[in-house]
Amino acid sequence: MLQHEHLLGLEGWSAAELMEILDTAREFRSLLERPIKKVPTLRGVTVVNLFFENSTRTRISFELAEKRLSADTVNFSAGSSSTQKGETLLDTARNIEAMKIDAVVMRHSTPGAVKFLSEHLEAVMINAGDGAHEHPTQALLDIMSLRDKFGSLEGLRVALVGDILHSRVALSNIHGLQTLGAKVTVCGPATLLPRHVERLGVEVTTNLDEAISHNDVLNILRIQLERHKHSYFPGAREYRNYFGITRERLEKSGRSDLTIMHPGPINRGVEVDSDVADSEHSVILEQVTNGVAIRMAVLFLLLGGKAVHE
Amino acid sequence: MLQHEHLLGLEGWSAAELMEILDTAREFRSLLERPIKKVPTLRGVTVVNLFFENSTRTRISFELAEKRLSADTVNFSAGSSSTQKGETLLDTARNIEAMKIDAVVMRHSTPGAVKFLSEHLEAVMINAGDGAHEHPTQALLDIMSLRDKFGSLEGLRVALVGDILHSRVALSNIHGLQTLGAKVTVCGPATLLPRHVERLGVEVTTNLDEAISHNDVLNILRIQLERHKHSYFPGAREYRNYFGITRERLEKSGRSDLTIMHPGPINRGVEVDSDVADSEHSVILEQVTNGVAIRMAVLFLLLGGKAVHE
Amino acid sequence: MLQHEHLLGLEGWSAAELMEILDTAREFRSLLERPIKKVPTLRGVTVVNLFFENSTRTRISFELAEKRLSADTVNFSAGSSSTQKGETLLDTARNIEAMKIDAVVMRHSTPGAVKFLSEHLEAVMINAGDGAHEHPTQALLDIMSLRDKFGSLEGLRVALVGDILHSRVALSNIHGLQTLGAKVTVCGPATLLPRHVERLGVEVTTNLDEAISHNDVLNILRIQLERHKHSYFPGAREYRNYFGITRERLEKSGRSDLTIMHPGPINRGVEVDSDVADSEHSVILEQVTNGVAIRMAVLFLLLGGKAVHE
Repeated sequence: MLQHEHLLGLEGWSAAELMEILDTAREFRSLLERPIKKVPTLRGVTVVNLFFENSTRTRISFELAEKRLSADTVNFSAGSSSTQKGETLLDTARNIEAMKIDAVVMRHSTPGAVKFLSEHLEAVMINAGDGAHEHPTQALLDIMSLRDKFGSLEGLRVALVGDILHSRVALSNIHGLQTLGAKVTVCGPATLLPRHVERLGVEVTTNLDEAISHNDVLNILRIQLERHKHSYFPGAREYRNYFGITRERLEKSGRSDLTIMHPGPINRGVEVDSDVADSEHSVILEQVTNGVAIRMAVLFLLLGGKAVHE
Repeated sequence: MLQHEHLLGLEGWSAAELMEILDTAREFRSLLERPIKKVPTLRGVTVVNLFFENSTRTRISFELAEKRLSADTVNFSAGSSSTQKGETLLDTARNIEAMKIDAVVMRHSTPGAVKFLSEHLEAVMINAGDGAHEHPTQALLDIMSLRDKFGSLEGLRVALVGDILHSRVALSNIHGLQTLGAKVTVCGPATLLPRHVERLGVEVTTNLDEAISHNDVLNILRIQLERHKHSYFPGAREYRNYFGITRERLEKSGRSDLTIMHPGPINRGVEVDSDVADSEHSVILEQVTNGVAIRMAVLFLLLGGKAVHE
Repeated sequence: MLQHEHLLGLEGWSAAELMEILDTAREFRSLLERPIKKVPTLRGVTVVNLFFENSTRTRISFELAEKRLSADTVNFSAGSSSTQKGETLLDTARNIEAMKIDAVVMRHSTPGAVKFLSEHLEAVMINAGDGAHEHPTQALLDIMSLRDKFGSLEGLRVALVGDILHSRVALSNIHGLQTLGAKVTVCGPATLLPRHVERLGVEVTTNLDEAISHNDVLNILRIQLERHKHSYFPGAREYRNYFGITRERLEKSGRSDLTIMHPGPINRGVEVDSDVADSEHSVILEQVTNGVAIRMAVLFLLLGGKAVHE
């Protein structure tokens, strides 16, 4: 059993808990390869997907996870919400909970919004991304993909490359990877590195070639142009010159076999070139498949399931 | 069995019919407290939620009711509708019905729109709010919450406070409450009281302290700022001064134990203060839970169910 | 079994394949008349409705077909999509497929978009309309409605009237009807007839009275005002004068018994008058009901079903 009641972030989760999720996700992953991809485990349980920010990909991944566990699911998106009518976030959430919801999967632009609600609701809360804070299921699916490939995370060297400052994916990955024994480097333009990030115990570099030389894995973050309030670098072409992952750059470093990851959606030709993203060393689509399995595992474990086949 | 085939409003419904819905809802309410909140009653039955106005709260409540009865459900909202392509309302509805729909839950900005369609379709029609006309399931859940607390509606004194003019909740409550023997007062600024409202048999007052003194329950209506075409009062602060329900005002009248209701979403600090809305005398969240049970009961009874567990 | 793995269009489909769909749809049509309109055939199978253009009617019809086959279904619409974040169509589709989707129902404004994806994905692809190219399930439901009424398509004379140039419905109808032995005429203003359309083996006329005299069926296409980039005719009144189907025009030709079809949504009083659209010779609402049955048949056959009741 997990020690935590909610999944707000990977900070503070033990290796044992993370491994329990990863092991459970592996079981669900094999279910996804069968013709009938569904178990009755969460029948009669209700999950609300409460998305205050657009995210088709993450919402669909959660929704599929819920439906394959036979949960009932309703979608709530900000565009059609009563928040437009001046209601507070807490009132919206309390109202939804009063409809006898068992779990809330929530995305919100404010860091800490999910944690705030978890302190006021009885429903299980799952963070699907809160501002630039955490996105724990994304990090879990990244870690699952690395475990599938390397067997263990112990001693694995993983570089997170790009826009660390605006990335909830980065922070969740740092917490999860370190807990499981991996060594993490963050690499990006100085303007996109959070101040004092080295206090998290990571290596920090603004030199991409160095990151390529010293790591086994590159997890290439998306340039979140839509979240930038200022201009952090001169333009897409300059970004690609300094931080884009191209085949030439990998070959020049003698590291054409580096494992390539990306949480998507990809800006092809900016942070990564197509021949790298689509190469045999890329696990980008594995990440997507594992995402459904991880979300099934998280829902299953937090909602108190005892066995996959009850 | 109900005499009515559709739920267009509470006007004209007998006490026996209302009680049948309330009794059935009580059964479903107890289902909602169980871990598996689902019955197979409406399996293979299809319900369309046809919302021409935004209403996350009501739509989710109906959708949960439908799913917990095992109905298949599809959502139709105006933003993505073929009404944008110049189709008439009747054509849209006839087309949806031709897909072999059993029931249509409908919200529309025009009073009478649901009734109009009920005269042309064979599907069961349920009014989820038609302009400022009726919102019968909201009134039923209000009444259910009062019955839970007081045992009976007979002789209960209920004041509806606020924007009576734009409120479909008020009209449905007046019909339902009076049929079940309650005494209704409406209280609000003179500009927000419908002309000749006293002909409905209600007490009318513009003096909030009087309403507080003479009633057992305050059902505080939302200030529907988004539906106002004109300015009906000087501002939110003035509104609060004269019609806001504050702890001081209740204490001054010696009525701190008045039962407090609100259909939501709440404008906190305008029509009601937080310490009142969240007090032990508030049944606001009970209303929300009862909403799902009432909608299950209405769907179940109108769709010809014979027993909850077939 | 069908020869095709995807339904991209009716071009190239054999009469035997079309008849297999029509026969299967007839079985599902009878299911739709029963109180429980649901079979467990596609339980555990996942279908994504990937709509890059608004189409409430077609999306709901597919969604109902999927749910009545017990498939799990998720909706993706362009407004909330990661295509807004600069992702390529292929990346969006590959990501969705990586979530272990069995079939994708897709609408897109670009002709050939569905075919393009079918060449890169393993999921079953079903075209729900690609630009002005094809809309095969619409043509199949039109053909089903004619077969129900006339018994056979052999020798039946069908006129497609109106905006042929912008109509995917027209092209799919031409392919399907001709394969099953019907004779097709296209009739519309010269500006709304595609160049060289006669090469498809159809009769071409700009004279509506001639089309009325020489055919058994009028399939009246919607004036797609929202897809017109230029002005193709002076106005709605002029259009009605020359190409509107009115009772007077039918009576003058002695053809009041012509079968009337329309794919909807109807511009009443423009391309067809209400007394014609709603007459006993209209099969417009039959088309809608048959649409659900056709979509059930297509999903069932392409997803490898062996029998309706496994």
